Amino acid sequence: MAFRFEIIQEQLSSKARLGRVETDHGSLSTPAFLPVGTQGTVKSVTPEELAEIGVEAILGNTYHLYLRPGHETIRKLGGLHAFIHWERPILTDSGGYQIFSLADHRKISEEGVSFHSHLDGSLHFLSPEVAMQIQRSLGSDIAVVLDECIPYPSPYEYAKASTSLTTRWAMRCLRGKEENDPAFFAVVQGGMYRDLREESAQSLVELGFQGYAIGGLSVGEPKSMMLDVLEWTTPFLPRNAPRYLMGVGTPEDILRGVMLGIDLFDCVLPTRNARNGMLFTSSGKVSIKQAQYAEDGAPVDEACGCYTCRHYSRAYLRHLYLAKEILSSRLNTIHNLYYYTHFLKKIRDAIQEDRLLDFYKTHTRSNGFEKECPAQHQVTCG
Amino acid sequence: MAFRFEIIQEQLSSKARLGRVETDHGSLSTPAFLPVGTQGTVKSVTPEELAEIGVEAILGNTYHLYLRPGHETIRKLGGLHAFIHWERPILTDSGGYQIFSLADHRKISEEGVSFHSHLDGSLHFLSPEVAMQIQRSLGSDIAVVLDECIPYPSPYEYAKASTSLTTRWAMRCLRGKEENDPAFFAVVQGGMYRDLREESAQSLVELGFQGYAIGGLSVGEPKSMMLDVLEWTTPFLPRNAPRYLMGVGTPEDILRGVMLGIDLFDCVLPTRNARNGMLFTSSGKVSIKQAQYAEDGAPVDEACGCYTCRHYSRAYLRHLYLAKEILSSRLNTIHNLYYYTHFLKKIRDAIQEDRLLDFYKTHTRSNGFEKECPAQHQVTCG
Repeated sequence: MAFRFEIIQEQLSSKARLGRVETDHGSLSTPAFLPVGTQGTVKSVTPEELAEIGVEAILGNTYHLYLRPGHETIRKLGGLHAFIHWERPILTDSGGYQIFSLADHRKISEEGVSFHSHLDGSLHFLSPEVAMQIQRSLGSDIAVVLDECIPYPSPYEYAKASTSLTTRWAMRCLRGKEENDPAFFAVVQGGMYRDLREESAQSLVELGFQGYAIGGLSVGEPKSMMLDVLEWTTPFLPRNAPRYLMGVGTPEDILRGVMLGIDLFDCVLPTRNARNGMLFTSSGKVSIKQAQYAEDGAPVDEACGCYTCRHYSRAYLRHLYLAKEILSSRLNTIHNLYYYTHFLKKIRDAIQEDRLLDFYKTHTRSNGFEKECPAQHQVTCG
Repeated sequence: MAFRFEIIQEQLSSKARLGRVETDHGSLSTPAFLPVGTQGTVKSVTPEELAEIGVEAILGNTYHLYLRPGHETIRKLGGLHAFIHWERPILTDSGGYQIFSLADHRKISEEGVSFHSHLDGSLHFLSPEVAMQIQRSLGSDIAVVLDECIPYPSPYEYAKASTSLTTRWAMRCLRGKEENDPAFFAVVQGGMYRDLREESAQSLVELGFQGYAIGGLSVGEPKSMMLDVLEWTTPFLPRNAPRYLMGVGTPEDILRGVMLGIDLFDCVLPTRNARNGMLFTSSGKVSIKQAQYAEDGAPVDEACGCYTCRHYSRAYLRHLYLAKEILSSRLNTIHNLYYYTHFLKKIRDAIQEDRLLDFYKTHTRSNGFEKECPAQHQVTCG
């Protein structure tokens, strides 16, 4: 499958880049945020709604789709795009992250990882080759190689051995690459150790992938540590390949990630929070269930142009949430994804106009997360 | 508020009528089916989706909206139409049906009915006047007077006393009618007793309402008994007022109701069944969770033009249902409401072209409910 990444503009005042990823299913502007479609749907919304919001690409979870309905079923039905009626780019993860979260229900070896399904306890085996085969069957545009996500904290020796295994697995994936395969993204690991992160990045770049994910972050480490790891890692990644920060994060995490040279993000935060009644707005977070909104006829965010804000009041959204109505999840999800998508759009505009630091300052002031900024990142954080 | 009912065409071979209801929020063609929006939303779908399906009017439940978010809140926010972003006609029930379902948690008197909220146990009192006041606050286009829904079976004496109470309550509602009020529909009761039904209909017609609901049906009685009651009742209702069969029913019930002179229907069946994975199709019901659909790439109904059938396979709908995805409820609801709405459209076309009996015969053959037809209704049932 075709895959191309082009850098349109680079910032002088930070490592941020404006770019464009092209695939057989269309292109996406970077930096980009990909909503998570765990089980073949971004929970509660349709592809048409995603497109209207401005979403250009989504993520699918290989682990979940492999277990149910099964990648072979999806392949027979024309691939994931046709199955879920989403014609734009899809990035799939390797399934590794979910399997390593199974804790006692999985066993890792040089060959791969055996695990018990969370659905029915059945035994399965995932190797680097199988992970790619599944993603091939799904017809992903971007496939991620199998890696071991190192828990935090982990001793140096464990992190070193694991990082080296991840590199060997990446090599095996590459060796099995077939014509017309998706783009392969490797995953930089190395725990919270600078030398291991550098080593991991260098070895993977030497093997040569179409993109590089940065894994093992947002696993419970302090926020400043995540920024440290990004600062250590991105200089070792090639300029002309997209960099993908897996599972991150808040709008602020994303903005800092962009300033450290990240191009792609995914996270369940906007969609999961939506279902829990937590809404992102231009003036901070709103918990819609609060009594103060009971008779509030204003939209969630006066500055927002989403379907929800154009037609519904806070009072109605509060009512739907308290009444446990399905429409609550829908309207909240539309709003939060619009917020994220347009937040990324604003970031891209700011890069293009070379005013990302100003954007960062304004955004931090209006959202009150300035004081969270760790001391050692004052330069990055403006 | 303006309210007008016009009969466009009457059938010679049955009591079916083609008509049009006009309200301040637009008109609807009858016979019509109104989806139920219990708590200020037809579960899982947006007003735009309802409009696209062809829905012209919906029902709101006074009991639920009174308890949460409260009719005064809705009034302050501009009425139910504005609150829920539905600009077309809304019919509200009186709340009586839900209250009488509370069994041990309500107490009836000449004055009205006191009951404990199913939400928090708090004590409330609903009189005929309060029921109208609530519906006035909601800004309904069509309001239903408070009645007592007689359980099945009930002794004659109980049914007689209750029916008479319902008539006195209807009179009180009428006495309190204000300028610019919604259209008031009275409710014919009388249990399963012919003389009481006749008496109920005659007394209410004498009082004079803008429409007549037929209540106390679909409460556990045999289907043939419901048809009997309709046959007894409709001859006593004025030709030029709409007749509304509350809480009914299956497509077959609706078709038979139309042939007995009913104009309006509402029921949770298409929406509730949708959420339970039961889909109506031109060749009968489909339980989408069945294993036979696991790799079935066909739409639910090849003959259906709904959004769901245009874009998704049975296999995908089965997957969404088994994965308990919110999108499952949405796509199934869209399909079932489309089925109902277009079923009513076909009925109207058949009345217009004076071929309703043929339509009935064809429909019963393709859906296999012919043998259900009770012997005493062979003429009606074709």
